[in-house]
This record gives sequence, structure tokens and C-alpha cells, in this order.
Amino acid sequence: MRTSIATVSLSGSLTEKLTAASRAGFEGVEIFENDLLASPLPPREIRARCADLGLSIDLYQPVRDIEAVPADEFARNLRRARHKFALMRELGADTVLVCSSVSPAAIDDDALAAEQLGHLATLAQDFGIRVAYEALAWGRYVSTYDHAWRIVEAAGHPALGTCLDSFHILSRGSDPKGIEDIPGEKIFFLQLADAPLLAMDVLQWSRHYRCFPGQGGFDVAGLVRHVLRTGYDGPLSLEVFNDVFRQAEAGPTAVDAHRSLLVLQEAVGAGELPPPVVPTGIAFAELVTPDAEPVSALLGALGFARTARHRSKPVDLWERGEARILLNTGPAVRRDGTGLAAIGLESPDPRAAARRAEALLAPVLPRRRAPEDVPLAAVAAPDGTELFFCATGRDPEHPDWRADFAETPDEPGTPAARIDHLALVQPWHQYDEATLFHRSVLGLRAQESVDVADPYGLLRSRAVTNADGSVRIALGVGAAPADDTLHAQHIALAVEDVVAAARAFRAAGGRLLPIPANYHDDLAARYEFADGELDTYRDLGILYDRDAGGVFRHCYTRTVGRVFFELVQRDPGYRGYGAQNAPVRLAAQHAGR
Amino acid sequence: MRTSIATVSLSGSLTEKLTAASRAGFEGVEIFENDLLASPLPPREIRARCADLGLSIDLYQPVRDIEAVPADEFARNLRRARHKFALMRELGADTVLVCSSVSPAAIDDDALAAEQLGHLATLAQDFGIRVAYEALAWGRYVSTYDHAWRIVEAAGHPALGTCLDSFHILSRGSDPKGIEDIPGEKIFFLQLADAPLLAMDVLQWSRHYRCFPGQGGFDVAGLVRHVLRTGYDGPLSLEVFNDVFRQAEAGPTAVDAHRSLLVLQEAVGAGELPPPVVPTGIAFAELVTPDAEPVSALLGALGFARTARHRSKPVDLWERGEARILLNTGPAVRRDGTGLAAIGLESPDPRAAARRAEALLAPVLPRRRAPEDVPLAAVAAPDGTELFFCATGRDPEHPDWRADFAETPDEPGTPAARIDHLALVQPWHQYDEATLFHRSVLGLRAQESVDVADPYGLLRSRAVTNADGSVRIALGVGAAPADDTLHAQHIALAVEDVVAAARAFRAAGGRLLPIPANYHDDLAARYEFADGELDTYRDLGILYDRDAGGVFRHCYTRTVGRVFFELVQRDPGYRGYGAQNAPVRLAAQHAGR
Repeated sequence: MRTSIATVSLSGSLTEKLTAASRAGFEGVEIFENDLLASPLPPREIRARCADLGLSIDLYQPVRDIEAVPADEFARNLRRARHKFALMRELGADTVLVCSSVSPAAIDDDALAAEQLGHLATLAQDFGIRVAYEALAWGRYVSTYDHAWRIVEAAGHPALGTCLDSFHILSRGSDPKGIEDIPGEKIFFLQLADAPLLAMDVLQWSRHYRCFPGQGGFDVAGLVRHVLRTGYDGPLSLEVFNDVFRQAEAGPTAVDAHRSLLVLQEAVGAGELPPPVVPTGIAFAELVTPDAEPVSALLGALGFARTARHRSKPVDLWERGEARILLNTGPAVRRDGTGLAAIGLESPDPRAAARRAEALLAPVLPRRRAPEDVPLAAVAAPDGTELFFCATGRDPEHPDWRADFAETPDEPGTPAARIDHLALVQPWHQYDEATLFHRSVLGLRAQESVDVADPYGLLRSRAVTNADGSVRIALGVGAAPADDTLHAQHIALAVEDVVAAARAFRAAGGRLLPIPANYHDDLAARYEFADGELDTYRDLGILYDRDAGGVFRHCYTRTVGRVFFELVQRDPGYRGYGAQNAPVRLAAQHAGR
Repeated sequence: MRTSIATVSLSGSLTEKLTAASRAGFEGVEIFENDLLASPLPPREIRARCADLGLSIDLYQPVRDIEAVPADEFARNLRRARHKFALMRELGADTVLVCSSVSPAAIDDDALAAEQLGHLATLAQDFGIRVAYEALAWGRYVSTYDHAWRIVEAAGHPALGTCLDSFHILSRGSDPKGIEDIPGEKIFFLQLADAPLLAMDVLQWSRHYRCFPGQGGFDVAGLVRHVLRTGYDGPLSLEVFNDVFRQAEAGPTAVDAHRSLLVLQEAVGAGELPPPVVPTGIAFAELVTPDAEPVSALLGALGFARTARHRSKPVDLWERGEARILLNTGPAVRRDGTGLAAIGLESPDPRAAARRAEALLAPVLPRRRAPEDVPLAAVAAPDGTELFFCATGRDPEHPDWRADFAETPDEPGTPAARIDHLALVQPWHQYDEATLFHRSVLGLRAQESVDVADPYGLLRSRAVTNADGSVRIALGVGAAPADDTLHAQHIALAVEDVVAAARAFRAAGGRLLPIPANYHDDLAARYEFADGELDTYRDLGILYDRDAGGVFRHCYTRTVGRVFFELVQRDPGYRGYGAQNAPVRLAAQHAGR
């Protein structure tokens, strides 16, 4: 299906918006009137610019407060509309959005609304224009899609149809099934937006909190299925008012937007995406650092051993049981110091996984970093983390990334450990986008988002996982762009016995994050422990959580650069990540700086 | 009355919070449990720290999910409470907040709740502690203050009273008059918070959007009046959960917080503030610049003449009619280039105005900048703008600031103009605080806040004015801390004829901000104009707005540094500032960069 986006959904000047929409793969745009008014380009030049960019102008919007008014007011409204229709002819736009009146002058009279909309459509027809009438969720008298359709039907004018908007329909809790009663050729346009499920004033909700389909809580795909059953063959068009997108760069937002429509089309059976290939484990995590010594010392104290070295690059493989860390000290590493740069995901079919990622607009990374390297399928996540699709020692058809490495005499460290989860820090405006990326590209499931109080701001965190929990990635974000309170990038190692692991770490010279005694005093108030158990936790800085499925014990290393390690002992049934302990951990990290 | 603040209202570590509260003048604190748990200080040291800072610990909070549960669960809850009471004894806190249960285990049985709260109070009494039971607005069975009071009354225990919280009462729309039915000695505590009037889920509203009294939409003062009539003599204590305050620096937030309680006490007749002295005009605006030439050229083109020069400093006075601009090129000017640094406000009693400002915690500026200067009363606004209280050539008792200036041969510029309004840019987290400052310190009235779409983010703006409109200050703020889209700092000159003023400016070599033709095409669609009128506006970049009271015509100069000028022709009845044209102006400013 054709895809389109309203210019109001993207930041910048009209030219910047159009360029971003085109580059992201959209075929059309809705021109939002305010964007045109603020543009130095005359309409004919906007038309030419769109043509150059391969964009059709699918809609001009909105014309407001037209219908169901006294005759003298309607005459003034027609005069205004005539100006707009002349403008649209210059622009080469053939459909105009008229949204239901919110004017105090409006009269509660459907027959009058139909009559005046018919007059408007007659005028539009003279200009070769179609009028798409839409119910705003907060329209004065017309606020539901079926009501708007009854008026359109009563007018019975060939140049008058309806425009459906998923936000206006779903925010009111209307049943979208009734859409199927509208003939497809009378649905002139379909605008799509999702939104988080908030109990708030619908106008404010609409103006500030809309998001792209799949990022919120609405069943947008369900609505689109009803629309497609009517025979609708116009574009799927995004209209999203969002305070954050208004500030974010237009380019990445447009890519996220287009991805959301690709996923939506797949959900309604109208897409042609390669199917998802869900990762089955974490092959490795890659740390980059300009200074190998502190990270090597940390890995050594954590029981990792350096087992192999890359044949051509300054990259070492460290192993402890199934947990593998690549330590990259090459000059090409990020300038912002020590951090988590890449994740190797075990994939049942690495090439197919990469094909899906590419189809979903993930930037594909060069398959070989150097000519002699094993070709690996890899893409970049929205936060810049490189995702490698691996088939570690498993599938003779797929190259093993370890072939690039020459073994050293060392044996893997002990005792056994594996990566329980990885925590990544997202750019401020990329939280919902990152979730949609990991869900759609990797086929992971998103858990609930949780708020975490840091002493200097509120953070949010949400995990994406595969079905058996062998891949768990926690996506974290600060409360505002300037937030420097982020200590969230980390690697959590699952161990059999966290007390033993913490003791071994300390005995090997590792420094654990000290946890305030007040925290353990509170544990004593909340739970009963075996003799000495709490003293051990207190001594080692072990935190404790419990849910219906079991217990979670965890402790932290000191931070090196922007990354730290967590040691976790997870009962099989425990689902979380100790989020309720995170404020204490964050405060301790701030105190230790 | 005593003032107190909950530690959750401020950002930082517990030590930082306590220090900020003490410095701002609070006499007590509520210790929020999570702040204690995350603190490395043991309770006895927290107690000592508070004592050193002159702070009492008025409340420990909260203990949750205690009452109306099966017996075995209540036994566990009592065990937990005993731990907390022992902790409070260490801390030296004698009142604990128990909020109504939200537990799924709770039973809808007031008699059981009263019985168990009675047991709890008996235990508390052993530790010298009083229990203050509060209804959370989203409590499972107890969610209104009168219901909580009925349970407390039924329990009839001397160590059990109620805690009132203005948010929980007013967010539910409960009538606070019923508070007067509670004996004052049974109101153990009073927590105060305001909030903007949002139609949203009350839990989310409470956790993220509370603000200080006078910053939101609740009648907090009305509620406090009811409480005082009961004979309550405990502290007025602020408990504010706010995402922005969590990120803002604790020091200024604490000052804003304490100011809100001073204003509140005045509103309920319990304060001792000097009365407000409302300014009656704008004496001058002071620009600072490292480079006098561009600003002088701009002032000259705007019809200003340099009429006087400061006797000892590199400050010139420029005048056009009643509009006066000081141009300061001294080395002490701000490093961030050309900007609006100070405002002279005409005051009926400058010294009294300064006394009120000081009582409301505004930093007082040195009365003389140099020994030979006329002593002037001045304070700093929260955004750093210096406010001078002046009695220009009016009152022999008060020195005239112009005495510092030696006249030059030039006559004031022509034709007459005056300052219509000044627009100031507020730090991101200081929008509501700035409004409260200008309302309370200067006695100005706040108009509605409006959202303005900038191409790169959403701005907000709100004007504060005196009754006759001779003082108008627009306070603007970006949508996020990193926002660099702010072109809002400006000086608007009221002229008799904006067309003539714009033409004269251009003829004198001034550069007007060009406005896109699309904007004027839209004006043609919306309004009818006399022949040629619109062409004139188009030519000069004049914008047009109309409300029920009249018409507003305005245009803009190019920006110099961080400041620009606006020329406005305002019909006397027009109340606004052309906000609906602001997106077009902002886009034009971005395009011209």
C-alpha cells in the first residue's frame, strides 16, 4: 500500500520535513497548513520540490469550522474555502481535510451540516478537489466517525467523502467494526496514529502524546483491517502530534515512522516483509575502550579468561562459561570512552535475520570489517549499538565469528556464567522507537515500562526478551535530553551463587558497589531471612527482590567509563530485573563518583 | 506558621536535599523513606545533620498497606512497623504517615481498619510515636479524607490522628469544608501540593505533575483556611512529586518552594509580608552587549536617540518618547553576548517594593553599583534578570536613576513610542516558578499560558501584567532543557502607526524580518482588508491578529545577539500578543539564521 505522512509529524522547516519523508521511503505527504504558511516557498515551488523528491501531496489539511453555521457565517467560510482551493490547485493537491466544527457558532443540525458540506463539495469540484470530512474526537456536535459518515451519506455528493483517523476513533473507545458499513470509495482518506493509553483530556492527549502505530496502546492494525475490508485503496498516512518528535531530528523520526507502517502492513497481511527470525541467545557483548587495562582487570576479577585474540585487530575474546565478551581497543572505537558497542545475537538464520532488519530500514553494516574477516550479517540499532547475527559453532552453513580469532593457551574462566541481560541507554527521544525496533526487527517481546527514581531525575526502563528468556535486553532512557544521570549501560552475568561470585570477585581485587546499611535494615523489616543471610548481603552489597515466581539476588561492580557489570542469581520463575532496587543502586553510583 | 518540606520534593542525595531546605528557610522536613534507604548516613547521623541545619524531622513517610487485612498479614505488617518505629526513634521523628491501603489483600471493613490502626497506634505509643492516617486519592477502599477521619474517630486512640493532603482532597473534587468537622488536635499533619488542572489518571497526576501552592489550579489557600479554623497548629508541609523538580537543582527549587508557602500564608491571613507594590510602568530596559555598534545602529534606525551617558560607566541612555533603553557595554556584562539584562519598573514606593521582594526570597542586588551611583532598590528575578524599582522624575523623596546620567545634546527620538511589553526567556524548569515570582513579588496578574509551535519544538508563553497594561512581561520557555530554539527575548515598542514606523525603520537602514507570502495569502482568506492594505503588510512583513477587543498589527527586526525588537500597533481593547502568528515568526527567524 502507499505510505504517506503529515508534515506536522516531523520537525524542521517544510523543506527539511519533505526531504526526511522522501529519504525514509514515504511516497506521499499531507501538507499541514501551518507548515505551508511558515514556508518561504510559494505553493508551486513546494509542488515542484515534492515532485523532485518523488512525493505526491495526498492531502491538504485542515480546513476547520466550516459547517452547520448561520448563512452569513457560511458565506464567509465559503470565501475562505475558495482561497484554499485555489491554493491547492497551485499545490497540486486534490483532497482536502475538513474536520468537524469546534466553533461556538456551530448549530446542532445534521441536515444543515450535510447541506453546507454539499455546497462546499460543489465548490471543491470546480477546482477538481475532493472534500474528506472527519470527526474530531472533541468536535462540538460531531465527534464520532459514524456520525460524520451519516452526514456525508445524507449530503450524497460525489466530491464529499469521509476521512477516518485512528486516534479520533480509538481514543473515544468507538467500535471500529462499524467502519465496514461505509463503502470503501467513500473513505477518501485514512490517517493513522497510535497513543499510549492515558486517562486524560482527549484534546491534550491528541495534541501532545500521539505516536506511531505499534508504539502505543491502540489496536491500530485491527482498525486498518476493518478499513481494508471496505475496499479502501488510498494511502496509509501518519498524522502524529508529539512534543518529543517536534524536537527530534526529522531524519531518524521519518525512518521510525516508515518502519511503523511496514510493521503495520505486515500485521494486516498487506506487507511483503521477510518473516522475523527470533534470536535464541547472546553470542557475545563487545566492549570498546581506549584503555584496556581497567576493563581487563575487571574482566579478570569477574572470572573471565582471555581465550582468543582477533587475527588482525586489537580485539580480545574473554570467556567465562557461556558468557563471552569482546574487548576492542582499536582506534576506531567510539570517542566517548569505554562502553558497550555491539551485541552478538545467536540466530537460527543469520542471513534471513539481516534481510528482515534491512527491510525494516535498519542500517546494514559492512559484512566484513576487514577483507580477511569472516562475513557477518550485522545492522545498527537506533541507539547505534551494532547487532551481529551469529551462528556460534552450530551451523556448518554459516560462518562462525570465532574463526577470526586465534586461541590463546588460556581456558575459559570459571565457574560457569552466562549473560542474563544487557542494559542499553537510549537517546532521549528514542524510547518507544527502540522498543518497536527490537520488537519488529528481532521479534522480541516488550515487557512493561517501569519508572525508576534516580536522585537527579526519573528514568524509564523496559525489557525486550525472547520467549525462554535467553535473550533479555533492557532499554533505558532519562527523563529529559540533558539528563546525565545515566548509569544504566551494563552487562548482567547470571551466576549460580551470587554470594560465591561476589566473594570471588572481591578476593580477586574487584570493587563491588557499596550499598547503604539503611537498605538492608529495610530488607529486615520486609522479609525474614535465615541466620546470617542478611549480614552476608550487607557485607557484599547484595540487593534482594522477590516476586510471585521467585527470588532475585544481585550486586554491582564499580563503573568503568560508561559501563558496569551486575552479578545476578535469578530463580527460574522470577521475571523482573530488581527494578525496585534501582533507586538505591543509582544513588550509590552517584555517591561513588 | 512553621514550614516544612518532604525530601521527595527536591533533587539530589538526602544531604543535598536537607542543605537546600535549610538554606531556603524551611524549619522542618518530612523524610521520605526511599531517600533514607538510599543514603549512606545512618539514622542517627541524619538526625544530627538535621539538627545542625536547624531542621526538625516532622514526619517519616510513608508506611503503606497496613490496615484492614487478615490477621496473619496484619501480624507481618506490625512486625514491619516495629522496625520502622525503632528507626524513627533513632531518627528523632515522632510522627509517621500511614496512607490508606492499595493492597489487593485489603478488606472493605472500616471496623477492622479502625481496630488494626488502633493496635498500630498502641505499638507506636510505646516508641513515643503518633500515627497520622491519610486517605490516598486512589486508596483501595479509603480514598476520601472524611472516610479516613471516620476510621480514626472510630478507633478513638490518642496516638492515632489523620493527615490531610491538599492534592488527595482537591484532585477528587472533595469539598474541603468538611475539614472543619475534625477537631484540630486530631489533625496530626497537613501536606500541601498544588497541581495544574489536568483530566488524567489521578495516580499519574499525583506522581508526576504536582507543583507548589499557587503554581497550579487548586484553591490550596481555601483548604488551608478550613484547616486553620479547626485549631490545627502543626506545620504547613509541602509534598510535591514532580518530574521536572526531580531534575532541577535543589537549591533554587527549595527557594521557590518556600516562597510558595510565604505567599500561601499571606493569602490565609497568617503571614507577615510587606504588602505588594504593583509597578505602574516600565522605566527602562537595559541591554548588555560586548559590541555597541550593531545595537546602536538598530536603536538609531528604530528612531531612538542617545540622550545621556552614565557619569562613570560605559552605559548610554537611548530614548524615543517614553521608551527608554540603557545600552551597557561594560566589561561586567554577560559573557553570552547581546541580551536583555535588566528592567526598570516604575514603582509607587521603590523601597517598599524591594522589601517585599526580599521578604519573598528574591536576591537583593547591591544598592549602588559604584560609590557615586544613585542608590537604587533592585532584586534579581529567577531567570537572572535584574529588576530595578524606579521613581523616574516623580517623587522628590526617591532618587531618580537618571541622575547618574549626563545629558548629551541629542533630543529624544521621534515619533513617540513606549515599551508595550518585554519578553524574557526562562530556564526550562522555571516557568511556573517565574510566574509565581512575578505574581507574588510584583503583584502582577498572570494571563493564560499558550503553546507556540516552533519548527524545532513546542514553546510555552504566558504574560504577566498590571491592571492597566502599562507593565506587560511575557515569560517564555522551551519544551525541554536542551532546547536552543529560543528567539523569544525581545522588546516590543508600541507605536501609533506600525506601517509608518516600519517604513521609517527601513528607510533608516534597518532590516525587518521577512514574512513568507503564504502567510499573507492566508490573511486574505481569513479577513477582508481595504484596498492595498494587505500589500503594505506583505511588503513590510507586518503580521495581523484580531480578537473581540480589537486589532493587533506587528512586525519584527532582525535579531542581534539574543535579542530583537518588535513594533506593535495595539488597539486599546486587544488583550493578546499575536501568539497565533508566533509560529510564522519563529520559522522566519530560523530561516534567517
